[in-house]
Amino acid sequence: MAEAGHSSNKLHFQLDRISFFTDGVFAIAITLLVIEFKVPVVEHPTDAALWDRLAHMGLLLLGFLISFCIVGYYWSVHHRIFGYVEKYTSRLIWLNLMFLFSVVLLPFTSGLLGEYASETHLHLPYGIYVVNICFTALMNALLWFYVSNPKHDILTHKISRERILLGFYFTLVVPILFVISFVVSLYEPTIGRLIPILIPIVLKYGMTGLTARAAANENSK
Amino acid sequence: MAEAGHSSNKLHFQLDRISFFTDGVFAIAITLLVIEFKVPVVEHPTDAALWDRLAHMGLLLLGFLISFCIVGYYWSVHHRIFGYVEKYTSRLIWLNLMFLFSVVLLPFTSGLLGEYASETHLHLPYGIYVVNICFTALMNALLWFYVSNPKHDILTHKISRERILLGFYFTLVVPILFVISFVVSLYEPTIGRLIPILIPIVLKYGMTGLTARAAANENSK
Amino acid sequence: MAEAGHSSNKLHFQLDRISFFTDGVFAIAITLLVIEFKVPVVEHPTDAALWDRLAHMGLLLLGFLISFCIVGYYWSVHHRIFGYVEKYTSRLIWLNLMFLFSVVLLPFTSGLLGEYASETHLHLPYGIYVVNICFTALMNALLWFYVSNPKHDILTHKISRERILLGFYFTLVVPILFVISFVVSLYEPTIGRLIPILIPIVLKYGMTGLTARAAANENSK
Amino acid sequence: MAEAGHSSNKLHFQLDRISFFTDGVFAIAITLLVIEFKVPVVEHPTDAALWDRLAHMGLLLLGFLISFCIVGYYWSVHHRIFGYVEKYTSRLIWLNLMFLFSVVLLPFTSGLLGEYASETHLHLPYGIYVVNICFTALMNALLWFYVSNPKHDILTHKISRERILLGFYFTLVVPILFVISFVVSLYEPTIGRLIPILIPIVLKYGMTGLTARAAANENSK
Repeated sequence: MAEAGHSSNKLHFQLDRISFFTDGVFAIAITLLVIEFKVPVVEHPTDAALWDRLAHMGLLLLGFLISFCIVGYYWSVHHRIFGYVEKYTSRLIWLNLMFLFSVVLLPFTSGLLGEYASETHLHLPYGIYVVNICFTALMNALLWFYVSNPKHDILTHKISRERILLGFYFTLVVPILFVISFVVSLYEPTIGRLIPILIPIVLKYGMTGLTARAAANENSK
Repeated sequence: MAEAGHSSNKLHFQLDRISFFTDGVFAIAITLLVIEFKVPVVEHPTDAALWDRLAHMGLLLLGFLISFCIVGYYWSVHHRIFGYVEKYTSRLIWLNLMFLFSVVLLPFTSGLLGEYASETHLHLPYGIYVVNICFTALMNALLWFYVSNPKHDILTHKISRERILLGFYFTLVVPILFVISFVVSLYEPTIGRLIPILIPIVLKYGMTGLTARAAANENSK
Repeated sequence: MAEAGHSSNKLHFQLDRISFFTDGVFAIAITLLVIEFKVPVVEHPTDAALWDRLAHMGLLLLGFLISFCIVGYYWSVHHRIFGYVEKYTSRLIWLNLMFLFSVVLLPFTSGLLGEYASETHLHLPYGIYVVNICFTALMNALLWFYVSNPKHDILTHKISRERILLGFYFTLVVPILFVISFVVSLYEPTIGRLIPILIPIVLKYGMTGLTARAAANENSK
Repeated sequence: MAEAGHSSNKLHFQLDRISFFTDGVFAIAITLLVIEFKVPVVEHPTDAALWDRLAHMGLLLLGFLISFCIVGYYWSVHHRIFGYVEKYTSRLIWLNLMFLFSVVLLPFTSGLLGEYASETHLHLPYGIYVVNICFTALMNALLWFYVSNPKHDILTHKISRERILLGFYFTLVVPILFVISFVVSLYEPTIGRLIPILIPIVLKYGMTGLTARAAANENSK
């Protein structure tokens, strides 16, 4: 998109608006996750009866926490990716929109998973949920693939090969672990579905360690 | 609106707030599109029974993708239009609000279309949906008509005649194709309703090609 | 709130965040207005049967348009008020929050009005709606009363007495016309409830005319 | 997170995006509080019958106002905390996300409280609500604990010990009063649940007084 004649200031604001819009969609998607949390209606409520009903929601709360972390995580990855972007193109806007499309579907697939959380013989809801996560991760990877390519000339500065690979690691570790989790859950539902709980821990250490290594590589050059 | 005494910095932020507000409304409208995607409740669920129910939602997903792209597209057009705006007036604020009004109606008309997606003998839901798109496009065109007019003195720099016409092309190609789609769908529902799937492709090529031509024209001057 | 040691840049961003938050709440409130627009479910739908159902929503659409304009209008007034603000205080934040509280109630009172739109013998829904608008206008007037007072030392520049009064006019003309509309509607429901349709026109001319006069006064000094 | 090679401008925008995203989540959470406010459906409505139904919602409105103020309050505390932040780290992003997680749960726990507001023999809904508030306050305190620690080197300037303690006071006074309120409500439901109404008043005076003292301490150094 030729933006001939625009001041540098205006161009920056135009770029920032893409981030604002993205942040808005993420903020809404992450908040809508909780919408499946329906207030239970008990006819003649006692504290014990209500507690019984709410206890069943414990699993939902865990699932919601995981979905919340996934959306929050991909927001933080988007945040990091766009930290390198200095210009925008039509293609970037559309890749970003398709990425947002995958994010906006998450409250639905997460809700589907929650609705049938107690039906442990079902594999479809979890399968669809994992497909959604893979879709989000794929769009995120495409975004990074597009942005990190110096040919497109939209970067603030050239990114080292190590950091580009690191970016793909950040993007793809989540869907890979979820696919493993899904395959294991076909045979061992309980163990399989617990695997994603490890993701934040794995990622946190990976993030700290690998970022340091990439930074070290860059400094040593 | 006389803003005598305001610093240039403050004026810019005041202008930016119009974009923030717009981005917020777009972000919510685009996310609410998915609200019609209700999690299906199956009594004694099996994977097969649930799949049956979800398979019916495939058409909904396609419709949702199209609506998502339309809202995303008009966001990107708004983004481009406001890239040229340097000052604001009361009239600009109200034209923008009426544009947002048309956008906020889209989750409803899109939901209406989705609700009756399987009733192929109905024409009204699709008709209302197309009217909504025409309304959005019209408001968008009026916004561009207002902004691009140098008399209103709100532009960052004068826009060439080619680029102004290009802006109207971007705005009006969508409703024109939807009206064609609607008219064809009166006789050939399936073929007619598939026409909008072509829009993104048509637009993408048009956008690249025509923008380049306008830029070339400007440079040759 | 003493912000000793903060750079001017940071202070501006801190002030801007109040506007971002406000814009977010407004964007959501204005979009939630449409949530009462439920997609009608018709058992054996024909275009004619569906049209019948939708035709009843014409009144709702008009009501929704009015509520949309009111929220949009108070957003634009807030936009103008904060255009004069250079510093913030705890009190400003809380006045702003209470103003937002009144705005967030509007989708409910607007929905109540819509739900009973066809029950023309009822006065309560419209009365509650008008009370909500008066509450919003009052909080808006308090905000302007606080901001425009040079004692609080939060203004970008001193505002003339004419402009301060003009600000109150902008804020209070809407509730006054709605109270008149309500009182008239007790005797002549149809005529009474049509009065607010005139507000945008009245305001638009008032805005242009009075702003020009205030600007002229300022220039003549 | 090493952001080697980034300009100071870009770094600031990257930091600002965390605030934008936070503001978006807060704006949605504070608006969703009102979603529990369902428009009552009365079969053969009269003004008197409708008023009867709405009068029961008076308690809900009070509860909603309190929840609104709590969310608004923690937004303002977040606003103050991030006013001191100049850099960001992965840990800050995740602490912030967990803080947002607690905020996003509030519309649910607030709705649960509202649903059983008239069942004065129940203690569970209020207990869960208080737990949510304690969770939010705890995450807020952790955020402040992390930010105010000069070791993390993310501050705009060193904060005095008085101001750090003042920050914890702001964060923790709300949950402490709610825990007292809950314990009292076990024996005296009406009196106990009225205690939180005092919070805004207590805080407002505390905020003004203690901030002044901290500022005086800083100036005297």
